[in-house]
Amino acid sequence: MNGAESLVRSLSAGGVEVCFANPGTSEMQFVDALDRTRLMRCVLGLFEGVVSGAADGYARMAGKPAVTLLHLAPGLANAGANLHNAKKARSPMLNIVGNHTLRHLRYDAPLTADVPATASVFSDWVRTAQTADTIARDAIEGLAVATGHPGRIATLIAPADIGWQEGGVIAPPMQPHGPRALDPQVIARAVSALGPDALILCGGTVLEDPASTRLLAGIARQTGAKLMAPGSNRRIERGAGRANIPRIPYPIDMAIEQLAPFRRAVLIEAQPPVAFFAYPNRPSLLLPEACEVIQLAEFDQDGRAAVQALADSIGAKSARLTDPPRAEIPQAGPLQDLALSAAIASALPEGAIIIDESLTSANQVDSMSAGAPPHSWLSITGGAIGIGPPLSAGAAVACPDRPVIALQADGSAMYTLQALWTQAREGLNVTTIIFANKSYDLLKHELFKVGANPGPDALNLLDLRRPELDFISLAAGMGVPGRRVDCAAELHRTLSDAVIEPGPFLIEAIL
Amino acid sequence: MNGAESLVRSLSAGGVEVCFANPGTSEMQFVDALDRTRLMRCVLGLFEGVVSGAADGYARMAGKPAVTLLHLAPGLANAGANLHNAKKARSPMLNIVGNHTLRHLRYDAPLTADVPATASVFSDWVRTAQTADTIARDAIEGLAVATGHPGRIATLIAPADIGWQEGGVIAPPMQPHGPRALDPQVIARAVSALGPDALILCGGTVLEDPASTRLLAGIARQTGAKLMAPGSNRRIERGAGRANIPRIPYPIDMAIEQLAPFRRAVLIEAQPPVAFFAYPNRPSLLLPEACEVIQLAEFDQDGRAAVQALADSIGAKSARLTDPPRAEIPQAGPLQDLALSAAIASALPEGAIIIDESLTSANQVDSMSAGAPPHSWLSITGGAIGIGPPLSAGAAVACPDRPVIALQADGSAMYTLQALWTQAREGLNVTTIIFANKSYDLLKHELFKVGANPGPDALNLLDLRRPELDFISLAAGMGVPGRRVDCAAELHRTLSDAVIEPGPFLIEAIL
Repeated sequence: MNGAESLVRSLSAGGVEVCFANPGTSEMQFVDALDRTRLMRCVLGLFEGVVSGAADGYARMAGKPAVTLLHLAPGLANAGANLHNAKKARSPMLNIVGNHTLRHLRYDAPLTADVPATASVFSDWVRTAQTADTIARDAIEGLAVATGHPGRIATLIAPADIGWQEGGVIAPPMQPHGPRALDPQVIARAVSALGPDALILCGGTVLEDPASTRLLAGIARQTGAKLMAPGSNRRIERGAGRANIPRIPYPIDMAIEQLAPFRRAVLIEAQPPVAFFAYPNRPSLLLPEACEVIQLAEFDQDGRAAVQALADSIGAKSARLTDPPRAEIPQAGPLQDLALSAAIASALPEGAIIIDESLTSANQVDSMSAGAPPHSWLSITGGAIGIGPPLSAGAAVACPDRPVIALQADGSAMYTLQALWTQAREGLNVTTIIFANKSYDLLKHELFKVGANPGPDALNLLDLRRPELDFISLAAGMGVPGRRVDCAAELHRTLSDAVIEPGPFLIEAIL
Repeated sequence: MNGAESLVRSLSAGGVEVCFANPGTSEMQFVDALDRTRLMRCVLGLFEGVVSGAADGYARMAGKPAVTLLHLAPGLANAGANLHNAKKARSPMLNIVGNHTLRHLRYDAPLTADVPATASVFSDWVRTAQTADTIARDAIEGLAVATGHPGRIATLIAPADIGWQEGGVIAPPMQPHGPRALDPQVIARAVSALGPDALILCGGTVLEDPASTRLLAGIARQTGAKLMAPGSNRRIERGAGRANIPRIPYPIDMAIEQLAPFRRAVLIEAQPPVAFFAYPNRPSLLLPEACEVIQLAEFDQDGRAAVQALADSIGAKSARLTDPPRAEIPQAGPLQDLALSAAIASALPEGAIIIDESLTSANQVDSMSAGAPPHSWLSITGGAIGIGPPLSAGAAVACPDRPVIALQADGSAMYTLQALWTQAREGLNVTTIIFANKSYDLLKHELFKVGANPGPDALNLLDLRRPELDFISLAAGMGVPGRRVDCAAELHRTLSDAVIEPGPFLIEAIL
């Protein structure tokens, strides 16, 4: 058994079921091992950013890591933006990246570059395999690191000869580190902080657990504290029967305004909220300076246990929730933001997985879908655009029986549109709604904040017309059927049909 | 004048004419400065790999750097694969990468990541601007580094506040470092090494200068030495009236065989040839172990002067060259490799710029076009696939009066196909020929080298069918017209027409 086979067999025994791959020559022995063992589902991405984004989507929904198979430093760099998003999401992921053999690394071959340095930027753990009999143990250690609390990005660099040499040894599964214990003194401080001028900001695993958020709603009701969630989250379980927790808005002035009333903030798997970007004459931190911050659970502590501890201390119970009404199906009419949002929110089926890279469009889907059937909501966590199409693919691989609906800005879609091909190949039930505003609208807002009166050169750099992108054509080129829609009622109908049909579909919503 | 404006004005005065950009919020003050000054042509790429690949293509043809404008660590990572190719090409390039303000970097904002570490992997020079009054000087220093001999990748990290603060100071142009002087003793050794068992391996600027290659041909003829070029090169000026220098082939066994006869090798802006990858039971270095290597000019020395010095020492003159016959126009018939190559080689117009990311297809275009009208030939230099479409765009921006013909493998095209949109927007005369073999054919060859008998999982990972990619649809989606062709005579006609028509065109050649 060679090193590559020992790695595949050990990871499979450790619970890894899926390999998202864009391999090259230096990874051929791993492809060969995957092929001979047939222990994992192999999913090909036509670009490495598809691979890393899909692995993130899979991890968020499966609650456990997939492995990726990537080619040397350039392949790893291509995966970098979505590794960044996954790292900020604290998604578990294990990357296997090939490298030249040690003897070959001495020479400046065309593909020689610093793989460990490339890996370091977007990984929490990096190791280079040294021998065929230890590579499986390295991989299992990386898997344990990835699977801990919180999830981490582990990257194992696998020189080609370590993969092809005989002497591979199966490594037994390894228990990941559990969460660090909570501090009773901090719990007591948090309990005494709760009151009408307090914020409870909860993120991470808390938002994934409807029992915890219902309990939090009970705590809030009993103490008068306000519940909020960070602007971007790995996954929120929401909809009918679940607590509706508002998120901190993206625009800095709105965020500052909403957080202004608070004198105390209890943070559970969340950090003190920070602006996306710094601006002249605006603070970086969004809570008022005078606000006392109590870090009840850090990211490496168990937020759900923290919620339970709070509830136990004050004798709070899960809130009995009254669901907001479902959004109404809009009448025929243009896709202005309200009608656009209503068309989508009213069509969400039970168990939908919403992938949100909508940016400036359809901003009311969030509030309008609080009463929709229970669903999962996945955000872009690291601000690196181009995650929507692959995140959708990965989520659908993890949950083949649930419809995935991607709310997708047009400019961002173009970074990783190749994921549509993977959606078609794997027959994934993903419905992508492209919000075709035909510009980098978010950046236009930002440009005006710089204070300038933009001229043609600046606007040209933020404009996606000339030529217009035709997403129906682009999708067809990758085997994904689609329809162009400019009416709210038709969007509702088209989306309602698409989520029932198996396989991917793309709706180009003309704004 | 703010820092951003001082940077743009200084770089423009230093000779920079083009900015390839995919900016984000942290670069808005540079967008604003580009807009107000209108000193540079701004070219938008919909993905950062398009930006870096286009800047490389521009640099190779213009002989001077463009600047790129990139967004933080994820944007820089997305540019990484083609920065890698540009670095291996020794193309001059200056990247301006935004970063958060210093005060904001203390917090874990969504887009916070290690920009300097990301830059280091694929840059020769990295600096972070510190104040508004020195950022222009930093940029000019980076420009000088980039423009030296050889070309280098310089990356200036520009925190947002350094750009928006007032106090910018124009920096005067700076003379780049010229080449390091040649060593007369080494020249003497090289002269005495020349003979029938000697190889002259020449790369870099030598291949870009027809006078030097003609002189080399004269030296070879007089001494019996054999001329060769590395497998991949930044640019070769070739065709009728120019010396035809064969390149070292990609397949390792073929390369070893062709280099086996040599007892001495004189290297001019080239390194001892090394295999793309290491394989079991094959050496990394391709020259015979006993071969004496004389490094006449390193990359930082003037190869053209070295050629002249050799010629002067032995009294050699430029060779009088007999051009090989032009390739014949093929008859109607399927696109087998010979007919495919002939269809293309026979259609090359004078001044064509060939972008070669053909990989396993159309491998005889090279030999068949030695007698074609004079043209430039640009290769993928770092082995990071996905450079063809952007490299084409950049070359066309540099040379608006010359037709660009991209020989493009289908799998590789999918990494950076967004460049077609830039080609359409800028009205660039690029004709892309997609070699639709519908697989990662190169990797299939490599998989067989691993020695396995591939099964369905392995072949599935290297197969681009299910669904078939429709490049005509994909191109149409980005505003590029195209035609599908499966006949050699029709390919010849279609290509001949397309190079005359302005604007981009895509030919999907069904193999």
